[in-house]
Amino acid sequence: MKVGERHYRTIWLNEDRWSVDLIDQRKLPHEFVVVNAQSMADIAVAIRDMWVRGAPLIGVAAAYGVALQMRVDASDASLDEAWERLNETRPTAINLRWALDAMRAYLKPLPPAERADAAYAKAAEIADEDVELNRAIGRNGLEIIREIAARKKPGEKVNILTHCNAGWLATVDYGTATAPIYLAAEAGIPVHVYVDETRPRNQGAFLTAWELAGHGVPHTLIVDNAGGHLMQHGEVDMVIVGTDRTTAQGDVCNKIGTYLKALAAQDNGVPFYVALPSPTIDWTVNDGVKEIPIEERSPDEVSLVAGRDEDGSVRSVRISPEATPAANPAFDVTPARLVTGLITERGVAKASAEGLAKLFPDRAR
Amino acid sequence: MKVGERHYRTIWLNEDRWSVDLIDQRKLPHEFVVVNAQSMADIAVAIRDMWVRGAPLIGVAAAYGVALQMRVDASDASLDEAWERLNETRPTAINLRWALDAMRAYLKPLPPAERADAAYAKAAEIADEDVELNRAIGRNGLEIIREIAARKKPGEKVNILTHCNAGWLATVDYGTATAPIYLAAEAGIPVHVYVDETRPRNQGAFLTAWELAGHGVPHTLIVDNAGGHLMQHGEVDMVIVGTDRTTAQGDVCNKIGTYLKALAAQDNGVPFYVALPSPTIDWTVNDGVKEIPIEERSPDEVSLVAGRDEDGSVRSVRISPEATPAANPAFDVTPARLVTGLITERGVAKASAEGLAKLFPDRAR
Repeated sequence: MKVGERHYRTIWLNEDRWSVDLIDQRKLPHEFVVVNAQSMADIAVAIRDMWVRGAPLIGVAAAYGVALQMRVDASDASLDEAWERLNETRPTAINLRWALDAMRAYLKPLPPAERADAAYAKAAEIADEDVELNRAIGRNGLEIIREIAARKKPGEKVNILTHCNAGWLATVDYGTATAPIYLAAEAGIPVHVYVDETRPRNQGAFLTAWELAGHGVPHTLIVDNAGGHLMQHGEVDMVIVGTDRTTAQGDVCNKIGTYLKALAAQDNGVPFYVALPSPTIDWTVNDGVKEIPIEERSPDEVSLVAGRDEDGSVRSVRISPEATPAANPAFDVTPARLVTGLITERGVAKASAEGLAKLFPDRAR
Repeated sequence: MKVGERHYRTIWLNEDRWSVDLIDQRKLPHEFVVVNAQSMADIAVAIRDMWVRGAPLIGVAAAYGVALQMRVDASDASLDEAWERLNETRPTAINLRWALDAMRAYLKPLPPAERADAAYAKAAEIADEDVELNRAIGRNGLEIIREIAARKKPGEKVNILTHCNAGWLATVDYGTATAPIYLAAEAGIPVHVYVDETRPRNQGAFLTAWELAGHGVPHTLIVDNAGGHLMQHGEVDMVIVGTDRTTAQGDVCNKIGTYLKALAAQDNGVPFYVALPSPTIDWTVNDGVKEIPIEERSPDEVSLVAGRDEDGSVRSVRISPEATPAANPAFDVTPARLVTGLITERGVAKASAEGLAKLFPDRAR
């Protein structure tokens, strides 16, 4: 999408045709920085330290990581090592593994001499597919927004709440949860987005607010605590969030706090949608609460908050006494019973084994 | 409670016997600063700008504000003006009005010459009563913790989640939600507290973590988003929160985000208790969601986060792009149906008109 006057994706091949450029999202919204990755190790750092984040983008970054490694050493052992090294960077991200599996399955049968070129081509294909997936999700979600708008008075805003950043910055382009919003705005439907701050890493305040502003979509930042109150008072017409991992029965593993918004949506009759490309469905898992291990991240993410100070410098401040211990589970699981629908590239599925199987008969077990 | 080696209340009469000392809680946990208030206007600023916060402490501060005003001008008009000026500082705080009504009702019949001394005596009495109320709440809540501990293996921790600061810093001493916790710790029950950060003003990270540390109560800071996940995984045995205002049918108006924790507690069978002195019950209001106006505070509280930087200075950093609009509702209402019990100084009431009427037959209508 646009940054200033120029159109960007979040990751792309450098003009040198071998190294990989990506937006260092740690600096947003304060600085817009593009980083050049020249090795698998660079990509591993970018994924692990969240220069890039968001399930689809992580998958594409990993695919390019494999390509960079094939350029240096295209042996079977090197390919396996790339799979291992990249897979361990973010254990919860299901399409990290999906992309790595796809790369390995595609490259293994080829002679090593052909693997580097093939890997770059395949990584580019995965990136383009992601853009197409998101456009399709956008079209399917747009229909839901249209229906809500049709029940309103002409010109009345459709208020959409979102959590974290499942925007174009989390994908290659368009975003997942934001794709229907961008398409609705383009279709002239008056949408307004409540953006959850999304502590501890503040992806809502840092990224979603920034990218919506870039596209002129009206929005309001709120703390994570506020959504329930807004829903009680009819201020939210629908919730759309993304997901890192969706189970075969429709449970949704997404950024910590998603579950609380789903509970509030149910309590107030607000439809709660999850937008996802089908590669984020993990067909091997059913009960998300019981089966999905939740990444525990550094307590510093809780105790320190980064922002721009009055002098314009970006710095972190400590919000709690020095000795205060903190816990930092990064994701939670929203049970399928709280999800109104799963907006996929093939259509909107009921959040159930049956609903998913109907839309994905080729994938469901 | 103790700060270092010395016992403090949050507000007390200065050694000069007329001015009022109070802890400036805006500086906590980074600096412990005591401020001397010498006029009603000083007290009004302290309440409005949240140097003091918490429903019971606000009431006591307002009572001392009236006393300071009576010392200067003890006329009827001055008394009425004090009521008006102090009442408008925090519209949601029910025991602000309760304390002001009590002061005026007590002072109006007296000759103006006697009002100043009487006002100081009455303010001191309200402060002492608050301490006694909280001790009684603590004893009643302790029984609930004891029952939970009895169902655990010996030595196993009782995990209690709390939101915002309903600690001794929010009262004159002991706190409301924390009184049962402090008494349980003193009784040798192994308690551990999950402290919600409580954005946007971070009273959990700033105040609750600080005061629990001062008393050696084990605790862990979490972001407001994390509580639902912890409850899903059996990490929380009970929730205790405070309240700014409780309705006659048991709805609870408390810091924004309380409602989300109540939903998660219900969804996971975790008991959700609200600790309150009976003056915070507003017998004139029934349906809290419909009837209680919610204070909308400055968007800067959302956009700016204060903390200590790497040089030890306290400063604010901006977490969102400069132009991002923010909304900041300060409270929400938790419907009575989500509340397991109301821990009052008279005992634990069911959160219903009947439950409250049974415990307060003298007050209920």
